[in-house]
Amino acid sequence: MSSFSDSPANEAPFRVIEDCRFGEDVVVRQFANLYGCEVGGGTRIGSFVEIQAEALIGRRCKIQSHAFICAGVTIGDGVFVGHGVIFVNDKRPRATAGDGGLAKPEDWELLPISIGDEATIGSAAVILGGVEIGAGAMIGAGAVVSKDVPEGATVVGIPARARDQQ
Amino acid sequence: MSSFSDSPANEAPFRVIEDCRFGEDVVVRQFANLYGCEVGGGTRIGSFVEIQAEALIGRRCKIQSHAFICAGVTIGDGVFVGHGVIFVNDKRPRATAGDGGLAKPEDWELLPISIGDEATIGSAAVILGGVEIGAGAMIGAGAVVSKDVPEGATVVGIPARARDQQ
Amino acid sequence: MSSFSDSPANEAPFRVIEDCRFGEDVVVRQFANLYGCEVGGGTRIGSFVEIQAEALIGRRCKIQSHAFICAGVTIGDGVFVGHGVIFVNDKRPRATAGDGGLAKPEDWELLPISIGDEATIGSAAVILGGVEIGAGAMIGAGAVVSKDVPEGATVVGIPARARDQQ
Repeated sequence: MSSFSDSPANEAPFRVIEDCRFGEDVVVRQFANLYGCEVGGGTRIGSFVEIQAEALIGRRCKIQSHAFICAGVTIGDGVFVGHGVIFVNDKRPRATAGDGGLAKPEDWELLPISIGDEATIGSAAVILGGVEIGAGAMIGAGAVVSKDVPEGATVVGIPARARDQQ
Repeated sequence: MSSFSDSPANEAPFRVIEDCRFGEDVVVRQFANLYGCEVGGGTRIGSFVEIQAEALIGRRCKIQSHAFICAGVTIGDGVFVGHGVIFVNDKRPRATAGDGGLAKPEDWELLPISIGDEATIGSAAVILGGVEIGAGAMIGAGAVVSKDVPEGATVVGIPARARDQQ
Repeated sequence: MSSFSDSPANEAPFRVIEDCRFGEDVVVRQFANLYGCEVGGGTRIGSFVEIQAEALIGRRCKIQSHAFICAGVTIGDGVFVGHGVIFVNDKRPRATAGDGGLAKPEDWELLPISIGDEATIGSAAVILGGVEIGAGAMIGAGAVVSKDVPEGATVVGIPARARDQQ
């Protein structure tokens, strides 16, 4: 049975951690900004990372510096999320709603994203809302992923395609 | 008449805010780094955002985490600036000037950028110096925008082109 | 002869600087995260920058905000590293090793990167492991550089190619 705690295993300066659940031996570096998320045991989270409420991160993942993980993202076990990776959960984001006020959560549809176990997301990749990435898949650095990626596949480029289709 | 203040409406830890002007009800999250800029009423600014001196941000905008907004950028009202968006104000940046010393402001030409009202800049997009983006335009996630974008147009890719030209 | 110190020339809040060596007149902005690196005299390092152990930065460089410089990167003198530039030192990163535990340094091969004097890396570019960029070269904003770039050449796009080959 795994047990959860409201703080990571290490100490570091300049962190904001609010209402999160951490498995055992989680390491969160300085300048991390986490709120409302759940992080599995053994995972390491780098500096300048933001993880939003209702994101779920598995066990033994590496979430590298400058990554942004939004609400609606579910990440399996053993996943590598490279530096500066950005997840997007809204197809046509707008700052304001029809009434001219700021857009509120009920003004848009959250598009979930799931990342299978042992997948790798290369640095600076962008994963668009609604995408499923299969277990063991590898996403090239700088790719923009707009479609599902099968288990074990490697995709690169903008938009991301299987390497041999390029 | 709008009134301005030298601090945002909310409190947050780990912020640097120097010589800025804020309209009413501006929210600035932790780990923001703002200096010398003006931000219109109702706008929300995320974590790990840097906004440089002489940038102008309109009212009711959303400036998402990890965005970088440089000097010379003027953003209208109701604009969505996605996570990790980067503005560039120099066509051929160099670290040093001809004399071997560090380049100083007078060693390069600042290329202004303007973003029309209600436009959306997708996450991780890069907007190059000298570009005008029209009102209501939508820039795809990860695009590199090197030319003007007309009002209401949608552009994607590197370099960014109208969707139906891809 | 140059002399080194364990702190930069300026003061700033919210910095983490551990086991670094700085030449004279180095400026490091707030929200920087540096450990185990060496930075030459006169270089300026922006906010939200992370520089890892065993990275070497030359003299009179500009390392702009949100850049990530990893172990194995050697940067010459007078180099411009744009905002959000990311270096990668591992061709096929994985979170875990064959035994299911977190990958450790000995589980992967570090691919070094070298950047020649007076080169410019445009904002949001990604430089892959094993690449050499020649002196005076210019890398376009948003490019993903997967091959060596000759001295003085300009490359753009994903993957980066000489401008006239696009």
